[in-house]
Amino acid sequence: MKIQLALDRINIESAIKIVEKVYDYIDIIEVGTSLIKDYGISSVGKMRKQFPDKLILADLKTMDEGEYEFKTAYSAGADIATVMGVTPLNTISLCYDVAQKYKKSIMIDLMETNESRITNLKKFKEAIFCIHIAKDEIEKDFESYFQKMKLYISELPHLAIAGGINIELLNKLNKTRIIKPEIVIIGSAITKAFDMQKAAKEFYSLMQNIKK
Amino acid sequence: MKIQLALDRINIESAIKIVEKVYDYIDIIEVGTSLIKDYGISSVGKMRKQFPDKLILADLKTMDEGEYEFKTAYSAGADIATVMGVTPLNTISLCYDVAQKYKKSIMIDLMETNESRITNLKKFKEAIFCIHIAKDEIEKDFESYFQKMKLYISELPHLAIAGGINIELLNKLNKTRIIKPEIVIIGSAITKAFDMQKAAKEFYSLMQNIKK
Repeated sequence: MKIQLALDRINIESAIKIVEKVYDYIDIIEVGTSLIKDYGISSVGKMRKQFPDKLILADLKTMDEGEYEFKTAYSAGADIATVMGVTPLNTISLCYDVAQKYKKSIMIDLMETNESRITNLKKFKEAIFCIHIAKDEIEKDFESYFQKMKLYISELPHLAIAGGINIELLNKLNKTRIIKPEIVIIGSAITKAFDMQKAAKEFYSLMQNIKK
Repeated sequence: MKIQLALDRINIESAIKIVEKVYDYIDIIEVGTSLIKDYGISSVGKMRKQFPDKLILADLKTMDEGEYEFKTAYSAGADIATVMGVTPLNTISLCYDVAQKYKKSIMIDLMETNESRITNLKKFKEAIFCIHIAKDEIEKDFESYFQKMKLYISELPHLAIAGGINIELLNKLNKTRIIKPEIVIIGSAITKAFDMQKAAKEFYSLMQNIKK
């Protein structure tokens, strides 16, 4: 299980400083949508230059112009780029093809994506599917939400999970074993922690235990 | 009927040069998603500085972090910012509230947005709703497509139309009078024309006739 650190609403210099602090405990650096929209795709390039040996995800949240956006992100140094599950299917196909061609990864963000669309997305066998949960939904009723999700994600081989992830939630997830994500995306639980390194280490240790 | 010029896949200097050429024939400058993702939100600021008296739209295509993205775009100088219709309703509400607070406009891009969601969006009375058509759909069967659309857009007061718009399509639209958009979004039919000024003028003249 990999830890993806989501970096958002800060400038690239601050983002780099955060990564330096928690480098040993994370697997993927997410250059968040806000970094890309605020400072452009060069945010990805700067991160790549600083951290040549870490996986980097560009959270493009592509809705259109899939081929152009994915080529731009991979050329800038991203290993993984994201497209929304609600994007026209043809656009997702174009993104997937670029990923295959560049031998890079694609993550499909399932936020607001309905069951019938998810069925259509199953053909993208090498894609990572990101279950993006609204915080409100989790707090309301965690188990029924995941049970519902389970119905239509059972055939997706590569899963990631995002949205207000904290230690408590991960413990619950581990206990219920409803889904087994390959990637857990963590943002403010690390970046807003008083001691970021300690917080990252805590997640890292928990992941090690889950692996066993 | 306003003409919105969509600028995409070029750098900001080229975009400014295009606007200078067609300035008199357009009403809204669209800083396209690709300009924002490639060069950051400063693209909007540069356009604002260059053209203080023209309406500027930031095609954010927001899917998340609505409040943050909309505040950033308006602060950079945008008059209009876009959110996707498929975005979680709560996020669209946040975008709408920011627009109201800043006394700016919001455009909701209806790409892939289904009928039941559009019904839920009708409460955003001051929003501009953008019918975003895939080129393939238009070419297949123009009239039946628009007839279908008409069923659920009849109560949306402010409409825009986008997606491969050219003179022929606008003529058809005008003839059938199925929908009456306030804004027509034109990209490559102007920016890829051999003579951009001539192309823009042609659209401008057609719009004047449609107004009558």
